[in-house]
Amino acid sequence: MQFELNREFIDELKEFIEQQNSEVVKAKLEDLHPMDIAEIMDELNTEEAKFLYLLLEGEKASDVLIEIPENERRRFLKVLPPELIAKQFIEYMDSDDAADVVRDLEEDMKEAVLQKIADKEQAGDIADLLEYDEESAGGLMAKELIKVNENWTVQTSLKEISKQAEDIDEIYYVYVVDDDDFLKGILSLKKLILNPTHSKIKNLIEDDIHYVKTDASHEDVAMAMERFDLVAIPVVDHIGRLKGRITIDDVVDVIREEAERDYQMVSGITGDVESGDRVWNLTRARLPWLLIGLLGGILGARVLGANEEALSKIQGIAFFIPLIAAMAGNVGVQSSSIVVQTIASGARDFDSFGKKLLKELAVGLITALVFSTLIFTYNFAFSNSMELTWAVSISLFIVIVFASLFGTTIPLILNKLKIDPALATGPFITTMNDILGLMMYMLIAKLFFNII
Amino acid sequence: MQFELNREFIDELKEFIEQQNSEVVKAKLEDLHPMDIAEIMDELNTEEAKFLYLLLEGEKASDVLIEIPENERRRFLKVLPPELIAKQFIEYMDSDDAADVVRDLEEDMKEAVLQKIADKEQAGDIADLLEYDEESAGGLMAKELIKVNENWTVQTSLKEISKQAEDIDEIYYVYVVDDDDFLKGILSLKKLILNPTHSKIKNLIEDDIHYVKTDASHEDVAMAMERFDLVAIPVVDHIGRLKGRITIDDVVDVIREEAERDYQMVSGITGDVESGDRVWNLTRARLPWLLIGLLGGILGARVLGANEEALSKIQGIAFFIPLIAAMAGNVGVQSSSIVVQTIASGARDFDSFGKKLLKELAVGLITALVFSTLIFTYNFAFSNSMELTWAVSISLFIVIVFASLFGTTIPLILNKLKIDPALATGPFITTMNDILGLMMYMLIAKLFFNII
Repeated sequence: MQFELNREFIDELKEFIEQQNSEVVKAKLEDLHPMDIAEIMDELNTEEAKFLYLLLEGEKASDVLIEIPENERRRFLKVLPPELIAKQFIEYMDSDDAADVVRDLEEDMKEAVLQKIADKEQAGDIADLLEYDEESAGGLMAKELIKVNENWTVQTSLKEISKQAEDIDEIYYVYVVDDDDFLKGILSLKKLILNPTHSKIKNLIEDDIHYVKTDASHEDVAMAMERFDLVAIPVVDHIGRLKGRITIDDVVDVIREEAERDYQMVSGITGDVESGDRVWNLTRARLPWLLIGLLGGILGARVLGANEEALSKIQGIAFFIPLIAAMAGNVGVQSSSIVVQTIASGARDFDSFGKKLLKELAVGLITALVFSTLIFTYNFAFSNSMELTWAVSISLFIVIVFASLFGTTIPLILNKLKIDPALATGPFITTMNDILGLMMYMLIAKLFFNII
Repeated sequence: MQFELNREFIDELKEFIEQQNSEVVKAKLEDLHPMDIAEIMDELNTEEAKFLYLLLEGEKASDVLIEIPENERRRFLKVLPPELIAKQFIEYMDSDDAADVVRDLEEDMKEAVLQKIADKEQAGDIADLLEYDEESAGGLMAKELIKVNENWTVQTSLKEISKQAEDIDEIYYVYVVDDDDFLKGILSLKKLILNPTHSKIKNLIEDDIHYVKTDASHEDVAMAMERFDLVAIPVVDHIGRLKGRITIDDVVDVIREEAERDYQMVSGITGDVESGDRVWNLTRARLPWLLIGLLGGILGARVLGANEEALSKIQGIAFFIPLIAAMAGNVGVQSSSIVVQTIASGARDFDSFGKKLLKELAVGLITALVFSTLIFTYNFAFSNSMELTWAVSISLFIVIVFASLFGTTIPLILNKLKIDPALATGPFITTMNDILGLMMYMLIAKLFFNII
């Protein structure tokens, strides 16, 4: 929190880079956090970024690399020789980060890099991790962990921990295994410090612990860690052998990404974009859902076109088209969002499908009653056609109830089919409800004015 | 992950509760996580929940209490005597949780409970924490932490840590202070274990650390911890004295809540609701934004009413009302969401206000060009009025560009005014753009058909 990156600092740095003044640039970068350096690089052009990056040394270079956004990192690594990647980056990384970097390389490059890693154990760990699906707990875990045998004493354990700890930044838990590497429990560092050196680990073990299997989804891992306030969670294979551990910082990223994805869906944005991105990326992220909106608009035009007679004969009927469409869209988005958020939060829901629909029906009926009464009152006061007043109110009532049920049902069905329910929020549900709402409005109006 | 809560388990439990069979209910709850018990209580009626809760003992009772949603907890505590609250719950809690519970009590109840706490140091800690704004780092932190003096040796420190650790569940970092309690750095447990007992703490200290001040916002705390992958962060006062620490599990909650709030805003929902909530809560959360939508719809009706002549004279003009309104709404939501998400993600953005608008103008112009060309092509093929074809395309072009700029500007202005920019997403921006879009469409159509 001490250093605040700003425009002036970057501009100054750019000048020194232009002058190829390695000394000053190096000095300026010295105290910066890798995250800050990655952000600065994002503001530079490729040449400037390269100049700056080559001034970084060993561990810092690898820390910065892991903070660079994935697609830029890929481009960057393409031009470097495998030996440099292995020696300059991979050897300084934890196995989970290293596996992420290697996974992105092309096939033959992958092998070349793995062969150039001097520490054969590390190379083996990375190769192991590459076997797991990227979207599973196995793909998220690191192999670095501290484990002790349940038959050891505190003294032996402390010695072994010292050895194992050399490669690990922070120790949160010590895992306890039996002779066959089956996970038996955890040992908190606190217990290790507070107990006499001859105590047996077996007697200090905490065996009521939470773990995940290697094929658990990222969401399941996040849910377990969040629910039980864990800092790290062990990962076991199908028969219970300890394979790795996942730390909370990786999971915070998962939680954030998941929330952002749902947010983007409901806002009608495709992919992860930020204000700072290039114009073309920003535009591309917005076109797909707008196209759906346009098609919906054209369908809406066709619905109204088919009701041309009613539109021309019934004075004032067109005035309420935006109102019906907007209410249908808003209600639908609300309903679908509540379903999606409930699913995403992992809150266990004991209601059956039928009970959920009944409940939504109740919500829809109350909401519909409130707003159709309001619009009835408004039109009763300001409109001079009683038929129109009734037609608009009854249409709004039916449209709201329908939009509630539709907005609830679609994401629930998608979720049952194992499709991301968030797909059914935002522009999709708005567009569908717009069109269906218009059709109902026209139908009801025609019934009231005897045009059918 | 071993136990999966399900409907059958709850129904079975309910039966035993009905039979007042404390033995069996107690046995069934024995192995459950506090979180699970809190969820079960949510499925029971008040009488059943009370029966179950009174069977819990000491620490477990307090762990369950903290997992119960805030408003239910408040209702629950109201009926209990202060002595029971102090002895049964508070004494088993960490100071941050205890302060949260006490903060919710009524004024005289607060004092009564604090006086009943046997451990005067704990009572003092809680009273200290109550002084901080709930929305600040001070309101989020706990007083429980492990600290050592920089002048101690490893041996002295280990002894002191054993003493301090009695009240603390997990040790993540040991904080190092000087004689006046100023934060000097941290000491990882790893270093403590791996170094000889006579080493001076001064020499093992890691002084390049991240901390927050007591008045930092929750968002700043979350951002710092997420950015730097921290498990715990120390909190200092304005002159740098160590006051407490915040752990990652509290921050995960902050991140989740923040993301959910933004999601709810863009979906038009007020407050934190889930599918499982009562019908009335679900309905109430949806009414406010729908009311804005209704008012927008009425304004839209007025705009169209003022253009009655154009609507009746220009054949087909009404058909494209939903298209114009929907595109304006969707584009506006996209623009505002990108701004809000960028602000929420804490990504530092070095573009000036003017540059942001210029960029959005570019995005808007490209998007507008794409979609007005598409609708032009469609109408050219299917409509028999060239004037209408032009009027719709040009209107759509102008409406899209305008909605982009409007959607970007409003949240940026709100943010500058220190108002939550998320207010300007969802139904608000959709409704505003609907109305303004309709006005532009009508104006342009009238110009094309010489009706003005």
